[in-house]
Amino acid sequence: KMERYDIAIVGTGPAGISAAITAKIRNKTVLLLGTKEASDKIRKAKEIANYPGLPSVAGEDLASALLGHLAALEIPVTDKRVSAVYAMGDYFGIQADNEMYEARAVILASGVVQGKTLPGEDRFLGRGVSYCATCDAMLYRGRDVAVIGYNAEAAHEAEFLAQVTASVRYFPMTRDLPRETDNLRIVREVPKMIDGENGVFKVVTDQGEHEVACVFVLRNAVAPDKLVPGLKTDGPHVEVDLNMRTNLPGLFACGDIAGKPYQYVKAAGQGNVAALSAVEHLDSK
Amino acid sequence: KMERYDIAIVGTGPAGISAAITAKIRNKTVLLLGTKEASDKIRKAKEIANYPGLPSVAGEDLASALLGHLAALEIPVTDKRVSAVYAMGDYFGIQADNEMYEARAVILASGVVQGKTLPGEDRFLGRGVSYCATCDAMLYRGRDVAVIGYNAEAAHEAEFLAQVTASVRYFPMTRDLPRETDNLRIVREVPKMIDGENGVFKVVTDQGEHEVACVFVLRNAVAPDKLVPGLKTDGPHVEVDLNMRTNLPGLFACGDIAGKPYQYVKAAGQGNVAALSAVEHLDSK
Repeated sequence: KMERYDIAIVGTGPAGISAAITAKIRNKTVLLLGTKEASDKIRKAKEIANYPGLPSVAGEDLASALLGHLAALEIPVTDKRVSAVYAMGDYFGIQADNEMYEARAVILASGVVQGKTLPGEDRFLGRGVSYCATCDAMLYRGRDVAVIGYNAEAAHEAEFLAQVTASVRYFPMTRDLPRETDNLRIVREVPKMIDGENGVFKVVTDQGEHEVACVFVLRNAVAPDKLVPGLKTDGPHVEVDLNMRTNLPGLFACGDIAGKPYQYVKAAGQGNVAALSAVEHLDSK
Repeated sequence: KMERYDIAIVGTGPAGISAAITAKIRNKTVLLLGTKEASDKIRKAKEIANYPGLPSVAGEDLASALLGHLAALEIPVTDKRVSAVYAMGDYFGIQADNEMYEARAVILASGVVQGKTLPGEDRFLGRGVSYCATCDAMLYRGRDVAVIGYNAEAAHEAEFLAQVTASVRYFPMTRDLPRETDNLRIVREVPKMIDGENGVFKVVTDQGEHEVACVFVLRNAVAPDKLVPGLKTDGPHVEVDLNMRTNLPGLFACGDIAGKPYQYVKAAGQGNVAALSAVEHLDSK
């Protein structure tokens, strides 16, 4: 039988790490999902001047301090990308790459989506648009697909897709590029919209159109209302109260995804509050 | 002419220190009011397990790290006890011991009041009840007064009052005691209420009554609605929104005074948000 964790935490930036620390101290079982190197954003920060107690700390050093804190409390990081969270009544189902997990409470700390969605992206999500290569690759075995890639991991996922599908067209949105092969082509055009009809979808760029069976849009974070059906959002942010509660009982949010300002210590503080609210939620049951 | 600071911050716990750090980095002039040793609460904490980045840190060491951060940014602490904040339209007047200060925005980070007020305390505040010995001592020169003392500083203030007034009766609520003299007597009775009529006030205890001209109630923190006339509160807490705004424009609150949970990193996170909201308030003018 599948283990049901007390609290699943999505994201390994300061918010998610802080939540994990407090949840563990309060004797809850914790599933911490995210990259093992803390968030990209923090590792790439040159100098952080206002994390109280660590004056002018390099982002890399703050990331190390946070990961060291996790290690000291023996909290493992499960290196998976969460693509969906489903409220199942008294627990949540969490889809992460090709795995499903269960937890009695969930804390979203996955950061804020960079940039806007493309026109057509919302409309075709789940049909011609996917956010998870690992989840959906097999559905497009032997077909032609496109990847709009926003980070290094997207480039890796494109390489994986190329092993399964007939062909991959990769639209790079950053400098991170996959290795080109016979069936993986880098297309240096700017996607403007996603369109489709009768099961045929296309990436419309500044220079032309590319017909595919699926467009994989691979960003750092999935928009919160795509991640959790029924979640009340305000633009790219989840609506929370002062206790970091969302509109869904047992689901909490903290850090950048819970709104501005995008600050490290604000994220850490909200992570702490979210964890204590999750503990209270579990103890009230 | 009196200097008008951009931002006055009341309290030197993690919330106030975090607010001061972020306000200074944003190039605002900062008046940080509070004890030079960071808050009592943090210094006396044995071990803090969930301040992210500093695993199992002693309270004293976290206090040192926070004060070191202030020092690195050359932010002085003004060691005064704030007894009132007045909204004056486009600025605030801040009464701290015997001084008045001015600031265009104020951040309350003075912690939460321990314990309840005494019956009669609210009713007679400003007449027979005072929260500030330094401010009001001269009003009672040659008269008999009482001190209900909740900390070591209250004991010192009682000694100061004894030099000015005819007599001081000291009701100790902790183990901290003033030095007894001819006109300073320690009364080991438990105050139950404050009563009064026609300018004569009395401390009613479990064993009798003590008539005085004024009752000084000296706690660690003043209840927020006593501190700031017109401030909207919820029990011992100031009502805030997610941006740490109160009902008074230009006045912000963070840390324990802004509500539970009483946690160090939550306080630091809210201090950061309060400072950025204060900066936004100033920049919008």
